[in-house]
Amino acid sequence: MLYLIGLGLGDATDITVKGLEIVRRCSRVYLEAYTSMLTVGKGALEEFYGRELLLADRDMVEQEADGILKDADVSDVAFLVVGDPFGATTHSDLVLRAVTAGIEYRVVHNASIMSAVGCCGLQLYNFGETVSIVFWTDTWKPESFYDKIKRNRDMGMHTLCLLDLLAHVCRKIFEPARYMSAAQAAAVTEDTVCVGLARVGAEDQAIRAGTLRELASCDLGGPLHSVIVTGHLHPLEVDMLRLFTSGPSGLQSLRTMDGSTCVS
Amino acid sequence: MLYLIGLGLGDATDITVKGLEIVRRCSRVYLEAYTSMLTVGKGALEEFYGRELLLADRDMVEQEADGILKDADVSDVAFLVVGDPFGATTHSDLVLRAVTAGIEYRVVHNASIMSAVGCCGLQLYNFGETVSIVFWTDTWKPESFYDKIKRNRDMGMHTLCLLDLLAHVCRKIFEPARYMSAAQAAAVTEDTVCVGLARVGAEDQAIRAGTLRELASCDLGGPLHSVIVTGHLHPLEVDMLRLFTSGPSGLQSLRTMDGSTCVS
Repeated sequence: MLYLIGLGLGDATDITVKGLEIVRRCSRVYLEAYTSMLTVGKGALEEFYGRELLLADRDMVEQEADGILKDADVSDVAFLVVGDPFGATTHSDLVLRAVTAGIEYRVVHNASIMSAVGCCGLQLYNFGETVSIVFWTDTWKPESFYDKIKRNRDMGMHTLCLLDLLAHVCRKIFEPARYMSAAQAAAVTEDTVCVGLARVGAEDQAIRAGTLRELASCDLGGPLHSVIVTGHLHPLEVDMLRLFTSGPSGLQSLRTMDGSTCVS
Repeated sequence: MLYLIGLGLGDATDITVKGLEIVRRCSRVYLEAYTSMLTVGKGALEEFYGRELLLADRDMVEQEADGILKDADVSDVAFLVVGDPFGATTHSDLVLRAVTAGIEYRVVHNASIMSAVGCCGLQLYNFGETVSIVFWTDTWKPESFYDKIKRNRDMGMHTLCLLDLLAHVCRKIFEPARYMSAAQAAAVTEDTVCVGLARVGAEDQAIRAGTLRELASCDLGGPLHSVIVTGHLHPLEVDMLRLFTSGPSGLQSLRTMDGSTCVS
């Protein structure tokens, strides 16, 4: 059996009891380490789980999947994924390879950034298409996400913008770890109410609501970051966002999309 | 401290290790019991958690919130929610009351149906607005969800349709437990590729992909059910959906939105 197990978003203790029990009895345990990260490293996970973890980078998952699936028809193999195994990144390829090889699989779900962003008070129902915003380089500055945000906003929908992690974790690229911060993504868009979220689910998570301009000048700390560009705001959503503004001036800026100021 | 703790989607062991540790040391533990349900009852949760659970129905949360928050400024109180505390249903009201009363709060995230539906292989990025479809009565047959599904499909987006649970759990209405099944919701829409999901994350979860017509005649068993009306299908999404079709005829029906048949 191949188990795809979500680790959630915070630290080692965010694994579910079900997931932990499976990890402890599998013959091999892989840690997917290229799309996201927890606030703790491999060592802390190994200590808490009581198991050695085999790091699976992108190359291994894409080119050496047979090694991961080896003997999974007669023994149990776990593949650990930060967040949910089918959240921001899906692992359809691995699942399809397993099924083709006659190997059964099971998914142990956990929190994903795709739903955990609801903690800022914006209704998940009211989100449109999610967009990815990558780290701009001198020669690569993709802007297609603008159109999607605009389309969502035209319908009054919120947009979750996931900012990429260009970190050194398991990458065979000798490049300093860097990541796109909420401030950077915010700087490239307009003067609308948005929410910056960093390290959602972790002890030191940071959430800040305000205009994009305000957000661009605030430092939410280390990765991972995401930004929500709001659409139409329900009064209850505004009340919640107020919890994450910085002082009275921040409160002022929270208006509904039609321009009427929300008075508390 | 008020802890809002997600229980995930399956059984008692789907709570996170972090959540379980908090439940075991809180002075009072409430179980929100009106928006969703696990596959096990309150007794099984109490046995596994080793704690007595106080059922919180909608009336209590809305009208007696002060009772839930009592002494939460000087002791720890847990409020357990199936799925994620800010998933399909938010608990903004309770959070705002707590903050107003000077009580700190923390969220322990878990899997939500809003992201766990990714297990069928459809990319969460490509979902538009989520809709709720309620159980129709003789006099109440709301159809507004059609417009939202149509709007999403026009843009090539998938739509997650959450079907309501009209169950007896903690409801002070003497009515037999009934719930809208995937088949019923499917019957009211068209001949498009969709996915019916039941009890996602549970041992006996059922996922079936096919046309709405095919889905309308298949029984996915007990609650909770949801339906995804697909938009534009990526070839990898089609490959994944094929895992959930019923035999060769089911495979035939999986086409991309532009009408071209996907050959496996």
